Amino acid sequence: VAIRTALTEAFGLASPIVLAPMNGISGGRLAAAVSNAGGLGLVGGGYGDPDWLRRELTLVQAETDRPWGVGLITWRATPELVELALGYRPAVFLLSFGDVRPYAAAIKAAGCRLVCQVQEVDMARDAAAAGADIVVAQGTEAGGHGAVRATMPLVPAVVDAVAPVPVLAAGGIADGRGLAAALMLGAQGAMIGTRFAAADESLMDERARARIVAARAADTQRTRVFDIIREYSWSEPYTGRALRNRFCSDWHDRERELAAALATEMPKYGRAVEQGDFETAVVFAGEAVDLINDVVPAAELVRRISVEAEAQLRVGGAMLA
Amino acid sequence: VAIRTALTEAFGLASPIVLAPMNGISGGRLAAAVSNAGGLGLVGGGYGDPDWLRRELTLVQAETDRPWGVGLITWRATPELVELALGYRPAVFLLSFGDVRPYAAAIKAAGCRLVCQVQEVDMARDAAAAGADIVVAQGTEAGGHGAVRATMPLVPAVVDAVAPVPVLAAGGIADGRGLAAALMLGAQGAMIGTRFAAADESLMDERARARIVAARAADTQRTRVFDIIREYSWSEPYTGRALRNRFCSDWHDRERELAAALATEMPKYGRAVEQGDFETAVVFAGEAVDLINDVVPAAELVRRISVEAEAQLRVGGAMLA
Repeated sequence: VAIRTALTEAFGLASPIVLAPMNGISGGRLAAAVSNAGGLGLVGGGYGDPDWLRRELTLVQAETDRPWGVGLITWRATPELVELALGYRPAVFLLSFGDVRPYAAAIKAAGCRLVCQVQEVDMARDAAAAGADIVVAQGTEAGGHGAVRATMPLVPAVVDAVAPVPVLAAGGIADGRGLAAALMLGAQGAMIGTRFAAADESLMDERARARIVAARAADTQRTRVFDIIREYSWSEPYTGRALRNRFCSDWHDRERELAAALATEMPKYGRAVEQGDFETAVVFAGEAVDLINDVVPAAELVRRISVEAEAQLRVGGAMLA
Repeated sequence: VAIRTALTEAFGLASPIVLAPMNGISGGRLAAAVSNAGGLGLVGGGYGDPDWLRRELTLVQAETDRPWGVGLITWRATPELVELALGYRPAVFLLSFGDVRPYAAAIKAAGCRLVCQVQEVDMARDAAAAGADIVVAQGTEAGGHGAVRATMPLVPAVVDAVAPVPVLAAGGIADGRGLAAALMLGAQGAMIGTRFAAADESLMDERARARIVAARAADTQRTRVFDIIREYSWSEPYTGRALRNRFCSDWHDRERELAAALATEMPKYGRAVEQGDFETAVVFAGEAVDLINDVVPAAELVRRISVEAEAQLRVGGAMLA
């Protein structure tokens, strides 16, 4: 059995499940595992380290013959980085957080589908106007960077705004119930991050994955403190949803003081990252942590989410008297 | 055709649609209209004005023979108010925002179902332990008072936490796509507020309803300023989602100054409410305003939402290859 949508038809997928290109976490092995299991794996190029990209894109190419993709943070992209990634022949190229117009033509000219992640309805209209082949509507419950609108009302509003461009739902989805709900909202699939961060093939530190398994949604928080300490200049309306650790508790709502204390705080933060001290180092995670209770192979996650979504869709049909 | 769930079976509904008991907006006429159309209408007793309650509960009793309910803000409830409302023989009694234990026994002893609205998973466990017959999981995208968790990940987590107690989804739902998504998340129905605030029978001022029709989700904001100016002592983690008007822009993030200026600001606010000046007076509204484009009779809304949800559930079934 499989779930058929415009997304699965476009790429020959067994399930409308897309791995979110989590910066430094969605490496080539994880992306390939998701693609090999019938989903669509996206490598998380994030801020655009060319050496990391070369290594992980070589890996995904080697490990799967199925379609896969790559993602970059738009405001960190450059023509050179986009060119580099296109050289590995991804099936899709996701851009999020910024103006995609400088890169749209090159991506589409390479025969690659342009996927634009947006956080508000007006951003979705801009993405469609820029030539997006697929729009991802990302809700505030997502882990990592995002904005303020919630998935449930955002997805149908984006579907209406960009029709007939297909839409994926992102944010707060970690199981088959969330995938089935995304499809009912009018999405053609779901982009899933945090659940796959806690997969065997994830590049997330093992101790950080254990924290995701243990965490509740109430332990997550949108904050800028981890951007400040890493010297990333994110603009409004973007913040990062992370597990609330000691560093976050110490500095959230004291952002100016943190910015003034970088000379002493950055070396400490750097050591914490090296040592895997996640009371200081960031663990990005979404509100769906409530639904995450184990670390298993990505293929098992794709299977579970698909089977549960299929079961829910069948339950839905049976509700019709 | 109809949608059958544990909720519709319990109350003989045609559709698993529940009118949110919006304070002062969900009056007897609106609640009766929803119940007569096959949903479940709840009168919004809110802060508990006994004269308002007597008038609106008399009205709902007179206008429908179908099951209906009543809601109160838990921290404003008193044994006398609960007794008063139970005297009108509601089928369900919704309590939200506080400890329901002082009232649970009286409500259940009256043969009335206890419905507890919650905003976090641990609150859901407390509600189930207190004897809730139904738990409403309310996401942050909801209009009016609420907290910070989003509907999409909150609902399945609450379903798991309180099983086998039935759960309703609230927050961000205004059409049949949202209802169908709620059912896929494991809810037995949806509680819908803002969409019905813009119904013909709503007690919301006509000019405020026009603002809801015109508004986008980005025009809404969670804030305490309207609680401060109305001298309502809401505690953490509750804030009210409202349309961002001039009053909100002027005072949000200046809450202490507002509290210090009440002597001059309250009379101005009172006049604005009297005159229907909604650049000052509050219009509570959720992020689902993106999906609200008209003011029509409540029965038409119940019909539309049901028909669209049925169609979506059928589409979902057809996705199974």
